[in-house]
Order: sequence, then C-alpha cells, then structure tokens
Amino acid sequence: MLSISPLDPGEKNPLFRQLFDRLREMIESGSLRRGDRLPATRELAGQLGLNRTTVSAAYALLESEGLIAGHVGRGSFVTGRAKSPADGPAPASFSRSRPSELLFPLAEFRQTCAEVIARDDAASILQLGSPSGYAPLRRYLLDQARDEGAARDSDDILITSGCQQAFDLLQRMLAPAAVLVEDPVYLGVRNVFERAGARLIGVPMHDDGIDLDQLAAILANTGNARPRLLCLTPNFQNPTGATMPLASRQALLRITQAAGVTVIENDIYGPLCYEGEPLPSIKQLDETGNTILLRSFSKVAFPGLRVGWVIAPRPLIEKLTEAKQWSDLHTDQLSQAVLLRFAESGRLERHRERMLVAGRARLNAALDACEKYLPAGAKFTRPRGGMNLWIELPEPLDAADLLPRAEREGVTYLPGRYFAVSRPRPNSLRISFAGMTPEEIRSGLATLGRIFSDALNSAHAAHSFSEVAALV
Amino acid sequence: MLSISPLDPGEKNPLFRQLFDRLREMIESGSLRRGDRLPATRELAGQLGLNRTTVSAAYALLESEGLIAGHVGRGSFVTGRAKSPADGPAPASFSRSRPSELLFPLAEFRQTCAEVIARDDAASILQLGSPSGYAPLRRYLLDQARDEGAARDSDDILITSGCQQAFDLLQRMLAPAAVLVEDPVYLGVRNVFERAGARLIGVPMHDDGIDLDQLAAILANTGNARPRLLCLTPNFQNPTGATMPLASRQALLRITQAAGVTVIENDIYGPLCYEGEPLPSIKQLDETGNTILLRSFSKVAFPGLRVGWVIAPRPLIEKLTEAKQWSDLHTDQLSQAVLLRFAESGRLERHRERMLVAGRARLNAALDACEKYLPAGAKFTRPRGGMNLWIELPEPLDAADLLPRAEREGVTYLPGRYFAVSRPRPNSLRISFAGMTPEEIRSGLATLGRIFSDALNSAHAAHSFSEVAALV
Repeated sequence: MLSISPLDPGEKNPLFRQLFDRLREMIESGSLRRGDRLPATRELAGQLGLNRTTVSAAYALLESEGLIAGHVGRGSFVTGRAKSPADGPAPASFSRSRPSELLFPLAEFRQTCAEVIARDDAASILQLGSPSGYAPLRRYLLDQARDEGAARDSDDILITSGCQQAFDLLQRMLAPAAVLVEDPVYLGVRNVFERAGARLIGVPMHDDGIDLDQLAAILANTGNARPRLLCLTPNFQNPTGATMPLASRQALLRITQAAGVTVIENDIYGPLCYEGEPLPSIKQLDETGNTILLRSFSKVAFPGLRVGWVIAPRPLIEKLTEAKQWSDLHTDQLSQAVLLRFAESGRLERHRERMLVAGRARLNAALDACEKYLPAGAKFTRPRGGMNLWIELPEPLDAADLLPRAEREGVTYLPGRYFAVSRPRPNSLRISFAGMTPEEIRSGLATLGRIFSDALNSAHAAHSFSEVAALV
Repeated sequence: MLSISPLDPGEKNPLFRQLFDRLREMIESGSLRRGDRLPATRELAGQLGLNRTTVSAAYALLESEGLIAGHVGRGSFVTGRAKSPADGPAPASFSRSRPSELLFPLAEFRQTCAEVIARDDAASILQLGSPSGYAPLRRYLLDQARDEGAARDSDDILITSGCQQAFDLLQRMLAPAAVLVEDPVYLGVRNVFERAGARLIGVPMHDDGIDLDQLAAILANTGNARPRLLCLTPNFQNPTGATMPLASRQALLRITQAAGVTVIENDIYGPLCYEGEPLPSIKQLDETGNTILLRSFSKVAFPGLRVGWVIAPRPLIEKLTEAKQWSDLHTDQLSQAVLLRFAESGRLERHRERMLVAGRARLNAALDACEKYLPAGAKFTRPRGGMNLWIELPEPLDAADLLPRAEREGVTYLPGRYFAVSRPRPNSLRISFAGMTPEEIRSGLATLGRIFSDALNSAHAAHSFSEVAALV
C-alpha cells in the first residue's frame, strides 16, 4: 500500500492536483521507482476515500508528464526517472516535430505484434506484397475515410512509406513546373519539389492559415505560368501551428477551383486536436472530389514504422502506384499489418485519447511558458493541436544567431529561416513541444526567454551606445 | 508412435529416400495431417533402427518439398496439405522471383520479433530514425562486409527500403544520360532508369554473363557519349540465372576501369549458391574501391520486410543518404531491428543453410524437368544458384503467344520479351523456380513441355501444309 499523506478537500488546489503533486514528488524523490506498479485507480480511491475519477485524473496528468505509463489490463507503471544531482540539466530539444517516446504504449504495441505474428497468415505478411499496400489495411483505411466523407466512390488509396514518400511520388507523377506552398513551410515538402526543379511560390502564413488574398493575387498575376498545384496543411501546420477556419477552407476551394489548381492536403496532424472541435478537411468539403489527401499513423503512434497513405481520384492513384513500384516495390508489410491490428483492436483510438491529454498538457505548458518568459514584444502563435508553435522575437533579434548560445545551455530549436520559401524571417523560430515533458518545456522556454531577453537588452544597450557614439 | 513399414537396406533407393517416400505418402494420403508433429529425429531413428542422419536427411527433403517445417526446439510439423480430388490441379506460378512462403521459418521469426519488442530500448526503435539506417544494423552489415573484403575503410553503408530503392536513389543522384545494362535485364532496373529518361544500352547475356567483347565494342564506339555506369548481377542473374566466372569478373573490371565506367553490382542472389563455391564479388576484386555493391535480406529471408543496403565510397553514400531523406525519411525501423536480431542470433545463417537445401532440390527438379519435358531444340540455362532459369524455345514458337494457353492449364511464367532491352527474343521465357515445391515444378514444366511440343507440331504441320499449298 502506498503511504500517501492525507489530501485536503478544503485546499484551493483540487484533489486530483494534490494527488498528482504527492505522486510526482514520490517519483522524483525516488520513493517510487521506474518499473514500480501504481495501485489500481479503484484501490487507491478506496484507500484514500476519494472518487475514482479523481485518481484517474491524477494518473492522466502523471502520464502526460511522462512519469508513468498505463498498460491496459496490467495497470500503470512508473516510467519517469527520479532526478539525481548527477544527471545535470536535461537537454531540451524543441527541434523535432515528433511524439515523445515516453508516451509510446509499449505494452500494447508488444501485444499487437504478438497477435500479428501468431496468426495463421503470418507467412503471407512476410512474403512480397502489393505496390498498392497490404490489402486489409487499404480496405480498413478507405472504409474509414468513406464513413467520414473523406473518400468518394471515385477515390482510391495507396499506402506509402510514410507521408514523405507520398509527396515524393506526387512530385514524380505530377512533375509540376511550379507549386504553391505555405511560407514558412515544412522542409520535407520544400526539398521534394525544389530538388525536382519545380519553382516554389510561397503564400504567406498568418495565424489562420495561408493568406487567401495573396493566393488570389498570385493566381491572377501568373497568367499562363499559373501553378496547378497547391500543398497545404490546414490543421496545426508545421512549422507555425496555424489552423484554417472553416470559412477559409471554403474560400480556398472557391479560389483554387476557379483557377484549376489541385490541392494536396497534408492532414498528418489532424487527429491531434487538443482544443475545440475538429474542422472538416478540405477533402471532405471539396465537391469536385479532386483534392489529394495525405494521412499517416506516425504523428499519433509509432513514427519509426513508416506507414502513410494517399486518398485521391482513382486515375491518379493508379499512376502513383506505378511510381511506387519502381521506387521501392511496396511498403513494409510487417509494419502495415501491425498498425492495422493496432487500429482495428481499438488500441490506436485509446492511445490517441491519451495523446490528446498529453498533448494538451504540453501545449498549455508551452503557451504558459511563452507568456511568462518571452521578452516583451515577442509574439507567438496559439495552436489548438499538433506539435509546433511559432515565435517571432522583437527586432533586431536573429534566432539563428542566438541558437549556439541556446545550445550551450542545453536547449535547441529550429530557426525560422530554415522554413522560409521567399520571406526569411530571421527573428522567428519553431518550437516543437510534443516530444518533451511539460516540465522540460517550462524549463527549456525559461532558458530561451532569459537568453532572448539578455540579447535584447544588449542590443538596446549597443543601440544606445551607437547613438551616443554618433553624437560625438 | 508413427506406423511406418520397414525399410529395406538392400533396395537400390537409399534409406533416407525410402523414409522420405513413406512419409510423403502418409502426408499426401492424409494419415499425417497439417499441424501434426513428426517424431524427433533421434526418436524415429531409434524406432526404425536407423542412423539419425538418415532421418535428418529425409526430413530435409520433406522440408524442401514444402511438406513439413522444422522449428528449432519444437520439432518438425506437417505443413503440406494432403491432396484431395476436390483441390484440382494446383496453379503453378513460375512468374515471381521470390522464395516459397512454405520455407519461411515462422517460429524463429516469431521468437526474433518477441525478443526485439521485449527489449528495454524498444521505444527508440519505434521513434523516428536516421536516414542512414538503424545504427546497430549498419554497423553489423558494414563490419561483415569489411571482414569479407567487400567494404574498404573509404566505404560507407546506407540502409534502403529494399534494393529497388537503392537503384532508384542511385539513378536520382547519378542521373546518368546512358546506362549499360544486361540484355535481358530485371524489369525493376530497366524501369528506374528508363522512366528517368536515361538511354539504356543492353549488353547481350550469355550463359556466363554479359558479352565482354560487345561491352568493349560499345565503349570503343560511343566516344563522347560513352556511358559512365554499368548495372549488373554477376551471381545467378535475373532473368537468365547466368553467373560470371572469375576470369570474366576480372576482365570486366579491366574494361570498365580503362573506360572510366562505374559498376553497380546487384548481389541479392549471391547468398543462394547451390552448387560449387561462391565466387568473389566484383566489389571484392575491385582494387580502385569504386564499385557500388547492393545487397538485401529479401531473397534469403522475408521479402515483405523491405530492407536492403548499398556499400559504396563515402562521398556517394552521403549523397544517397540525402536523397533517401527526401524520398521517405528513413527505412522502417521495426523491420531493421528484427532482421538485425535474426542475423545476429545466427538464425539467418541457419535458415540460409535450409534455403540452400531447398533451393538445390528445386533447381534440380527444374533442370530435370526441362531435360525431360521440353521439346527437342529447346535450350535452357543451368544456373548454380538463385531463383531463375531461362528457356529458349525452338523457332517459330513465341512464348508470349503461348502464355494464355498455359494459363488456362494453370501454369504461368514471364515471356522473355518482358526483359528485353533492345533484343526481343520472342521464343524465350523466364522460369522462376524458387517459390514452388519440386513436385509443382515437375508438374508445371510437364504441362509447359506438352503445350510447347503441341505448338511446335502444329507449327510444323502448318509449315508442311503451306509448302504443299505452294506446290499446288
């Protein structure tokens, strides 16, 4: 039985938060150790005379901090390491847009793998597969998309080795002379098209997605050289975290359809909506059925398993499947079968719900810390989901110049100029918050806030000095 | 205890063969059924008063026929289905160059997976990986290649999503205006370069590999437009099954080095050498270190797991790794970790030894059946390993014309013209024997032999008739 000092219902701090604090302290002090099993929620609720939902809420918070992991049917286990002085400060990497390893549901993954490889048809999974993808997975994903209205009868699906390959295959088959992309944009998109010699036309991003007036102006001015393709991420865009409101999505479709522009909708962050209701995708809204929809398991579940997919009109899927065949024959079958089982068994959805709790805690930690630590004049986006937010520092700060200093203090990020198409914004940076615990986010942003404030003060001092010098 | 009638040491048929026949009959008659466990070799040897190696040899033959499967530590189980009249003739597919599913070591695969996912570092395998590949696998494969002299200190390695992707990345980074390839050649190679707009120059294949005189002549005659790249498969080439003798490999290197041509050596069939000693690879023989070596797990083990690799000079590997990143970020990590464990544990090598026994039985069945059933005037290659052999039918037979008839009788193959670069040989076809049991090979080739002989007789009759008609 855990020895927990009594909670106080009269305290301002709610009971679940008090319980969370007690347990966190026990983990950090080492009285609960990595691998220790926590009591079942019912048991601990009985012991402490609490409502069971109070205990569940405390466990959910602990899980979102990466301190424990829940395993269905087996209970919750301590995963966080007690801090020891010898550890030194943990490096805080804001530079990768990926989920935290601490949140991977390992027991469920193991169970899923065991189920897949025990099956009678395991040999057929290990045999050469189809370029289109593992048939049961294709059927599952296409049915799901049809139920959501994200696939029509005239659509088909291709399983790809992650969404990066979907972009690559699209570039190869569509071979656009010019492509409209968000500015700033995810590097993987920029690279794929740029390397192939396509001209990239950046449409500026605002807090609510690409600037539609600018888009319309570009399309009106390019005449015969008008681009025929637009790539965008309407939900929780990487790098800015911006989401397009419904009205913008509808307006976008009117503009692109009038101009004969096909939309590639990258929706890999869509399932990670932490605040408010998810919006319909462009693909769902598009009456013409022409939108090309990209999705992936890798932002919700296991990014090391390379499985993404494209839903698009059948003739295009046929062309992409041909290109897939000479690119790499087919997508890994073991991972396709494991992810299908993970989804079909309901584990993916349960895991996604835990990721929403964890993601919300991380996002809030990041927003609170930006508010608290960034120097006056700094602006930052307020994403409602996904993994990234975008900071614009006051002039004359340059995020790339300040990076080496941040790295010396154990904090990394990607400067905004890495994502620029034609509008380098040297004072901007991307903060990828999903891979870290809320505590790491707070301490990392505290460090960055101090560095940025110091640099700003020095810049002002230098500016005053140079004004003085100019007077001499 | 199995009820087996006594064997006769005086019979001409050796004891292991007699035991094999008895057991096969029991499986085919249904007295041993799918899933039944065979006695341990020691036990059955004791029961029948035989040497244990006799029983092992009989089991190996049964395994090579796809009738049983051995599981280390658990014994051997019946996997072949008893034939029932309702089954009808099994379709015989000679059209895919891949191993038989019946030979996959499922129990060992399951054990390997279980070991990988149980590890403490499982979460890092499921996380986003490196474009270069899973570091422990890279180290293992590179060390192995260094031990064999197939990698130098100046070489490095890139893990690819199968060897097809290696070809694709090479095409993208080397962007050759023209490429020398074998004629006939594997479709995947032809497609990759042709789609990219490269000019393919076919060098005719003979029983001992590409025609070196022709190669020298092409290089002498192309002048400034001389191709700088040659792709070839010195061991058990697909589609012909041909192997280059050592002297040809050395002569090839002299010719290509004098002409400044880089060799891409596709060695995916190399580990499947059934007769004679394996020959040194071109990469091993190449003193300049410039040869680009491609290898893969997928012909020996589990082709559904897409893991291949390239060993080449470091600057090229760096370029390929960059292209890999925008092609699909990185190769699936689960499959990389599973295949590494499969190799490191010694299971891969044990499985390869079983594949050599099985492959030899299949190759011999194919050669014997070609000898026995093909019409007079037909020629066929005599591979010493791999998965394919090549048949040239007597004129005026056309293998593509005869395919629909073969398919109606349940047998498929790929006509030679599918593999042609600039020399269509309509009378040729590829027989991929590795995916079938020896019995299927025999009955499939018997059917083909009958169809080809009939067609030849009809052609002769028509010819005689037209001669008669011409006299009238």
